[in-house]
Amino acid sequence: MNAEGLITDETGAQRLIGYVLDVGQQDRCARCHLSLTDQHLNRHGVLHGGIATAMLDNALGATASLTVDPEGRAPFLTISLSMQFVAPARKGAELTATGHVVGGGRALLFLDGTVRDADGTLIATATGVFKRVPQDRLAPTERKDA
Amino acid sequence: MNAEGLITDETGAQRLIGYVLDVGQQDRCARCHLSLTDQHLNRHGVLHGGIATAMLDNALGATASLTVDPEGRAPFLTISLSMQFVAPARKGAELTATGHVVGGGRALLFLDGTVRDADGTLIATATGVFKRVPQDRLAPTERKDA
Amino acid sequence: MNAEGLITDETGAQRLIGYVLDVGQQDRCARCHLSLTDQHLNRHGVLHGGIATAMLDNALGATASLTVDPEGRAPFLTISLSMQFVAPARKGAELTATGHVVGGGRALLFLDGTVRDADGTLIATATGVFKRVPQDRLAPTERKDA
Amino acid sequence: MNAEGLITDETGAQRLIGYVLDVGQQDRCARCHLSLTDQHLNRHGVLHGGIATAMLDNALGATASLTVDPEGRAPFLTISLSMQFVAPARKGAELTATGHVVGGGRALLFLDGTVRDADGTLIATATGVFKRVPQDRLAPTERKDA
Repeated sequence: MNAEGLITDETGAQRLIGYVLDVGQQDRCARCHLSLTDQHLNRHGVLHGGIATAMLDNALGATASLTVDPEGRAPFLTISLSMQFVAPARKGAELTATGHVVGGGRALLFLDGTVRDADGTLIATATGVFKRVPQDRLAPTERKDA
Repeated sequence: MNAEGLITDETGAQRLIGYVLDVGQQDRCARCHLSLTDQHLNRHGVLHGGIATAMLDNALGATASLTVDPEGRAPFLTISLSMQFVAPARKGAELTATGHVVGGGRALLFLDGTVRDADGTLIATATGVFKRVPQDRLAPTERKDA
Repeated sequence: MNAEGLITDETGAQRLIGYVLDVGQQDRCARCHLSLTDQHLNRHGVLHGGIATAMLDNALGATASLTVDPEGRAPFLTISLSMQFVAPARKGAELTATGHVVGGGRALLFLDGTVRDADGTLIATATGVFKRVPQDRLAPTERKDA
Repeated sequence: MNAEGLITDETGAQRLIGYVLDVGQQDRCARCHLSLTDQHLNRHGVLHGGIATAMLDNALGATASLTVDPEGRAPFLTISLSMQFVAPARKGAELTATGHVVGGGRALLFLDGTVRDADGTLIATATGVFKRVPQDRLAPTERKDA
């Protein structure tokens, strides 16, 4: 994470798809940014549902993590995600997925989120259940207390 | 599509992620195959939920298409997808997503599907609503009667 | 519908469960109100998920209807609903489900909504896809032009 | 529970809606039976989505319980449910909701299920996440070891 809270190239999937994760906003809602190129498009020439889901999964998961870790790295597993594909997005669009905590407790969190383009048009929504990974099941390199 | 019904490198997202779509099976259930490499993994070192969703979106959408087009290309839009992430999958896994028509009518179809690894372990499930794109709204190059 | 836009005892399910539907608010978001009694509770002594879903199905469907009919009666079918059960609600709670249009077009609408108790605590959320019933498929008694 | 594993009139919601829960089948998949009357119908004169959801919530939750308790009473909470409303059901229909365990671990289970009418027509499907209620959080009267 750089000084502004931006995470890039952290994982294989992130390097593949090319999104930027932002965990440094005051509202503790993580954002996932992506500039759409040909490689994010489906048969219809619009944003592939899997790429939209990847953006939302990242944004919601990192937002979950921000509830317990100001760096947004404490691991949470995605249990379920319900996606609605509201409008198409095309090549060149600058998209932002934003997560939001809806409720939950110590082990499970409910989140929702949106993907919007630069002018605010709603592209997709997600609701999801995320589970905190118990510290004692983490590998030593993942533990915050290591 | 080759003689065996395999589709590769059709779209930008397919070239990026590297899956193979199979629309040539007797049961008219499309499959989407992917060999997991580092670039498909998330922060936990396991299959990213967005990649699992991309596989299922492809398999369900192509299965919808097979209801009206033996080549599995008639376009259907994904309206909604509900994902359950049942078990992790790791680097080297050979995954198959399979679609299945549950019901529906002329314009909307209900589908479900699974992602399983080579020994049959269930990795993820999806249910989804898909909508047939009316022929008269297609670009000339997409029309079957063109 | 009375002068204030309240609908009671309209259907068998409404008479059974006892909710009140409000389609008269300025924001064109329908509400469904229910006072929890023993008959709305599950094995855990809290609001049954099916009753929470009934409230949200009503609120979202009537909100969909309000997009084309100021009386909130133009029929829309529920295609899919994804529920999140965020917190329990107990006997005596005064609950309100509220619908909200997220997007969509002429035939399909995307909605979401919440169930909250009297002090605003979030009890459950829903996202759903609703489909307008074509006028030419309605029975004569259901047609607005009849 | 009677000798055949049938549960009736257990809860307020069950008495209200009138379903019968069957936890006595060899396959350890719970069933929820309901004979449709006027009071289960919505504005369209067909099965209300909330009633269909109540049936599936019961069937999936009791199936979850059967994984740890042969009497199907160990409490599990519904975390999320995704419903697909595939076909209408009308007054007089004899409906059965059946649950099925898809996967999961000690604390969380993934289930799916269907509602079918007497001739097997698929009416609705559900997928859901259920959470086991820890024994130490139960009231004394709910504890199996009490």
